[in-house]
Amino acid sequence: MDKPVKVCVLVGSLRKASFNRRLAKALISLAPSSMKLDIVEIGQLPLYNEDLETDPPPAQWTAFRQLIKAADAVLFVTPEYNRSVPAALKNALDVGSRPYGHSVWDRKPGAIVSGSPGAIGAFGANHHLRQSLVFLNVPAMQQPEVYVSHVDKLFDEVGNLVNEGTSKLLQQFMQTFAIWVETIRSQGQHN
Amino acid sequence: MDKPVKVCVLVGSLRKASFNRRLAKALISLAPSSMKLDIVEIGQLPLYNEDLETDPPPAQWTAFRQLIKAADAVLFVTPEYNRSVPAALKNALDVGSRPYGHSVWDRKPGAIVSGSPGAIGAFGANHHLRQSLVFLNVPAMQQPEVYVSHVDKLFDEVGNLVNEGTSKLLQQFMQTFAIWVETIRSQGQHN
Amino acid sequence: MDKPVKVCVLVGSLRKASFNRRLAKALISLAPSSMKLDIVEIGQLPLYNEDLETDPPPAQWTAFRQLIKAADAVLFVTPEYNRSVPAALKNALDVGSRPYGHSVWDRKPGAIVSGSPGAIGAFGANHHLRQSLVFLNVPAMQQPEVYVSHVDKLFDEVGNLVNEGTSKLLQQFMQTFAIWVETIRSQGQHN
Amino acid sequence: MDKPVKVCVLVGSLRKASFNRRLAKALISLAPSSMKLDIVEIGQLPLYNEDLETDPPPAQWTAFRQLIKAADAVLFVTPEYNRSVPAALKNALDVGSRPYGHSVWDRKPGAIVSGSPGAIGAFGANHHLRQSLVFLNVPAMQQPEVYVSHVDKLFDEVGNLVNEGTSKLLQQFMQTFAIWVETIRSQGQHN
Repeated sequence: MDKPVKVCVLVGSLRKASFNRRLAKALISLAPSSMKLDIVEIGQLPLYNEDLETDPPPAQWTAFRQLIKAADAVLFVTPEYNRSVPAALKNALDVGSRPYGHSVWDRKPGAIVSGSPGAIGAFGANHHLRQSLVFLNVPAMQQPEVYVSHVDKLFDEVGNLVNEGTSKLLQQFMQTFAIWVETIRSQGQHN
Repeated sequence: MDKPVKVCVLVGSLRKASFNRRLAKALISLAPSSMKLDIVEIGQLPLYNEDLETDPPPAQWTAFRQLIKAADAVLFVTPEYNRSVPAALKNALDVGSRPYGHSVWDRKPGAIVSGSPGAIGAFGANHHLRQSLVFLNVPAMQQPEVYVSHVDKLFDEVGNLVNEGTSKLLQQFMQTFAIWVETIRSQGQHN
Repeated sequence: MDKPVKVCVLVGSLRKASFNRRLAKALISLAPSSMKLDIVEIGQLPLYNEDLETDPPPAQWTAFRQLIKAADAVLFVTPEYNRSVPAALKNALDVGSRPYGHSVWDRKPGAIVSGSPGAIGAFGANHHLRQSLVFLNVPAMQQPEVYVSHVDKLFDEVGNLVNEGTSKLLQQFMQTFAIWVETIRSQGQHN
Repeated sequence: MDKPVKVCVLVGSLRKASFNRRLAKALISLAPSSMKLDIVEIGQLPLYNEDLETDPPPAQWTAFRQLIKAADAVLFVTPEYNRSVPAALKNALDVGSRPYGHSVWDRKPGAIVSGSPGAIGAFGANHHLRQSLVFLNVPAMQQPEVYVSHVDKLFDEVGNLVNEGTSKLLQQFMQTFAIWVETIRSQGQHN
């Protein structure tokens, strides 16, 4: 395949110095060259409210929807807030899923990395997100599962990933994801 | 107990004509007289972002936190968006849970009613919300579970609940909730 | 592809007259001819206990593991017990997942139909099962989701599915599943 | 209260040398003297099958149901199998929940400790179990949540808990649980 696979990366934390944003950058740099990954911002999206779904809807919604629509795949990198998905990321899912019948998520292969400063690696957020992806028809890669614990200990002062074990794991994750994306995208050929 | 129990009601949908807002109003009117219930608005809350947690934080956050803090209990009435909690409601949970060590949710007894136009009654949102309430230390009433299906068929043109079966169920729910709140609030006496 | 795709069907209820068993039979009869589906029994499996993982382990475990191992795909048809997966079905998952490093589930494409006499269609069982499938590396088909409610009303006295709407839905489900299985099985070709 | 509070302890692993069984024993020894805790065995229970619900049902079911029925509270100590509740423990829940209308779990206050050799402390099992407890009307203590990670590193050769931090945490957990049980049991007085 000559054209690179376009992957939108969504980061669940809005903090500028977010550890998950750093993880996302590490994932981007470790991805195979067949993929072109870009972080899509989500913090500017107004909270989903069907009453705002007028013609036109909020400009931020439209811009976001177009970016996802144009992507070949999606990668979620997220912390856990209160044992679930951060509101900002859930909002991005909700905004992209509407209006009814026009979801931009449909059939995009996806993968999840979750990270937290605690021991548990944001397991709760990871799996709540997966439940939404069932409905959104985003075929989610199952393995390797990646729960990054103690995420605050993995970077140097300028935000580069300096933990070798994590680095290897993320590289392998991205290689498997590249295969997953290609597999799912081939589905049309079996129809 | 002479002073009425103050209950904050959070509605998961931001639509003005929201069916869950109507459910919330029905629940308020069906509650025992020992309870004083008020809907607390959540649509105006900026998306949680720790970078905004300055001194002072956004005024809407502060006002919301004060309302919840002053309450004796919380009642959630929510639809399901993409098999999980709507972003607006998750955001309210996130905003109220911070800054670290100052959560306003701690020890407030809670209950959940979930409703959807579909057959399933927003089961996914109901239980994802419950997982957050574990972390937030909101003792959640277990039974009766209420999943309101076909919620769009229960009201008349001016938004009054006209389904008798649902009406009875919600009344019983509120009576059990009143006992639950009293039970949990008595906990200090056992310390 | 000339050889039919071998699919193991696991039924979550052990009752002889189980409605989910009837659903399973309906699914088998509605499947495309490219698939050969067989129900694999799970009620005879001793509860998983690592102490029994001797050489040889219980004969029922070995027989079950061989059947799954020989399959190309797996289809789960299950009721909900106490808002989660029935123990018998969870036990089958556990038995097949061990001993460590020898899981028979790995990389088998899978799909889920859940059914209950109630209104909710066993949503809780459906999604708890999906969480296990992540770990087991069973790529689970996302859409169509099928939650069969009022499952006790769909069959005639001899157990045949007589509800036309459900029949159509299940047929479409099996056609999509056939494509899903083929897609996932093609993965090796992208490696 | 003079009579000790009777607590049934259910261990999710059937292994004789199970780390979670050791955890359970540590919890028993660290409990306040107002509680009398006993492990109730679950490995002998035939897999739940409604067809066996004859008069009489399997003797093991009856004996188990009577033990739970006679208890004032329940404590679950469990590993995670395949990101969910081990089949043996789910089976105990299922057996105790039937026949319809005769659940032995109803209104028993409960608490959960989950432990695993991995880093995540059996989070998935812990929360899937909580979802069942909603339906079973077992008011589950929310905080402190206890996820015991690296559970295989906490005991000496004869199975005694030798990790001081964990020991303190479990002691505090049991003290809070004692208050929780008393609070929930007082509920009748508010009716």
